[in-house]
Amino acid sequence: MFDGREIFYYDSVARERNAIDTREFEPRPEPAVLRLDLLTNEWIAVAAHRQRRAFLPPKELCPLCPTSDGLKTEIADSDFDVVVFENRSPSFAEPAEGWTMADNEGIETEIHQAAGRCEVVVFSDKHEGSFANLSVQQIRTIMEAWRDRTREISKLPYVEQVFIFENRGEEVGVTLNHPHGQIYAYPFITPRTQSMLAAAQDYYDKYKRPLLTDIIDREINDEVRVIAQNEHWIAYVPFAARYPYEIHVAPKEFVPDLVELSAAAADAFPEIAKEVLTRLDGVFGITMAYIAAWHQAPVRVGRDSLGLHWQITSVRRAPGKLKYLAGSESAMGAFIMDLAPEQAAQTLRDVQL
Amino acid sequence: MFDGREIFYYDSVARERNAIDTREFEPRPEPAVLRLDLLTNEWIAVAAHRQRRAFLPPKELCPLCPTSDGLKTEIADSDFDVVVFENRSPSFAEPAEGWTMADNEGIETEIHQAAGRCEVVVFSDKHEGSFANLSVQQIRTIMEAWRDRTREISKLPYVEQVFIFENRGEEVGVTLNHPHGQIYAYPFITPRTQSMLAAAQDYYDKYKRPLLTDIIDREINDEVRVIAQNEHWIAYVPFAARYPYEIHVAPKEFVPDLVELSAAAADAFPEIAKEVLTRLDGVFGITMAYIAAWHQAPVRVGRDSLGLHWQITSVRRAPGKLKYLAGSESAMGAFIMDLAPEQAAQTLRDVQL
Repeated sequence: MFDGREIFYYDSVARERNAIDTREFEPRPEPAVLRLDLLTNEWIAVAAHRQRRAFLPPKELCPLCPTSDGLKTEIADSDFDVVVFENRSPSFAEPAEGWTMADNEGIETEIHQAAGRCEVVVFSDKHEGSFANLSVQQIRTIMEAWRDRTREISKLPYVEQVFIFENRGEEVGVTLNHPHGQIYAYPFITPRTQSMLAAAQDYYDKYKRPLLTDIIDREINDEVRVIAQNEHWIAYVPFAARYPYEIHVAPKEFVPDLVELSAAAADAFPEIAKEVLTRLDGVFGITMAYIAAWHQAPVRVGRDSLGLHWQITSVRRAPGKLKYLAGSESAMGAFIMDLAPEQAAQTLRDVQL
Repeated sequence: MFDGREIFYYDSVARERNAIDTREFEPRPEPAVLRLDLLTNEWIAVAAHRQRRAFLPPKELCPLCPTSDGLKTEIADSDFDVVVFENRSPSFAEPAEGWTMADNEGIETEIHQAAGRCEVVVFSDKHEGSFANLSVQQIRTIMEAWRDRTREISKLPYVEQVFIFENRGEEVGVTLNHPHGQIYAYPFITPRTQSMLAAAQDYYDKYKRPLLTDIIDREINDEVRVIAQNEHWIAYVPFAARYPYEIHVAPKEFVPDLVELSAAAADAFPEIAKEVLTRLDGVFGITMAYIAAWHQAPVRVGRDSLGLHWQITSVRRAPGKLKYLAGSESAMGAFIMDLAPEQAAQTLRDVQL
């Protein structure tokens, strides 16, 4: 790219890609930094340059559309299937030589460069539309891009965890409407993954089975929270959901991350993905804002115990009403749910496709 | 109250309170339940009855106003200073006899009654206004109500933690505009407090001093993040803030909870509270939505290590722009900040009072 960032084209049919980014050089922003919150021992990234990032630009200025006569965008080619490139305003980026994240001792903590990597995954060269409405083949190509990027990013010595996600809808802070997702690769294990890792490892030590495998068996057995299944995947509202509409989509065979999925499981994903997201939009007959998050085992630990799954959460609890994270959730991390998970599952199953 | 709930009047000048709640009896809702999220070992409360709670009623139907000829409200008297009563749609309530929260073993977890207590703290009998605009005397009375309720609720055998907070503004999900706060008493230690407890106890074991005491010393020493001080309190933007405008207000002398505050410290609170909230509203010249959360040590543990402080967070990052909890924050608990804490502190200090 014009400022030295990497870009990767993923095509369902092999073709040559040699378009050149002819935008005038601009220096990249100052790297973000990490500060340790001593009260919780959690890392916070401070990326002041992100205040200036593009905020809901009009369609004709969309940086995720292909380049055309009138507009030079982030993608130099004039068409594409799926494209991945480094984020222009990254929260995490390649560190300077000699970077370490030394242990912090005592009260005077150091500020570290926020090492890692942030990438944008553009789902389609069409500005309109959404993940659920893409073709099965297109989603299969996205899946391959996710797998390839997870594999490559996992090799970086300063990356501990690769997180792939999609924010959809202005209610969850989307700043660009063109269908796209993101990849955040962190130089630490995130607080949520730390909790999941502790629970998964504890369970594995006790029962010699991955926790997620037993959770899936329980869901199949209980039946009431299951929304959809095929040979390789199951979708259900979790027993202790935090959000009015929360769906987990998990491979039936345990794998730690997307890279380890069998080809058959990867092939079977687009169909169930389209079904659950279509059901979600059907609940109120409106486009639902959601966060779709791939939980993967960290790069170096928990590979036997923490199982890959896709978590979709929506903050909409009724037409015109959102679930806000207020005092209990935001300040204490203690979630209160207004809707029984079994009732949410019933509603999702009842949607006419 | 008409359905058996308790109500407490706190008056700055002693007076008799004997108004009778003459509303017709209605049964209280089914108690909420607790479900264990096995993926994280965290408890989730499911309170399905809360879907039906009052949602932004017009002023003339406000249930937190005093009772008048035209309207019977939650408060039977026709005027009051500060009133606390049990929440009509509680997420946590007195459990049935024989209640326990037995350890959960294996994959088939039990559903427990959500034991605990939820109370509403009405800050004033005036429908309009906000905490920051109350008189010093009125805030001192609220402080006394908080202290008294913390003391009393801490005696309940099924309560592990007392959480006092205020949600202000529709952007954080406020469903009633009348100035009020809430008390949630949990039968478990919340996820956030567990993290804080682990960090505080670890620090105490190593250095034989409360972590918060050393953090305050550091803030006084660094100076750049301090917003306001008096003899007993200090207000600062924390070194690793998670929100664009986050302020911590802490007593200079370590105490585990509000009950243990000296009378002098309690007396000195209203002034600094009014100042920081007025500065917050001054940042953009608009009424800021915020969550104001009292972090107190749990009832039975961490009393030497976890220090009382008041955490105010606002999701507004610019006029017309909110900070949303998107993928990284919501799914991974990893916060990205757009604004350097020192810059936020400077802006808050620069507000003309």
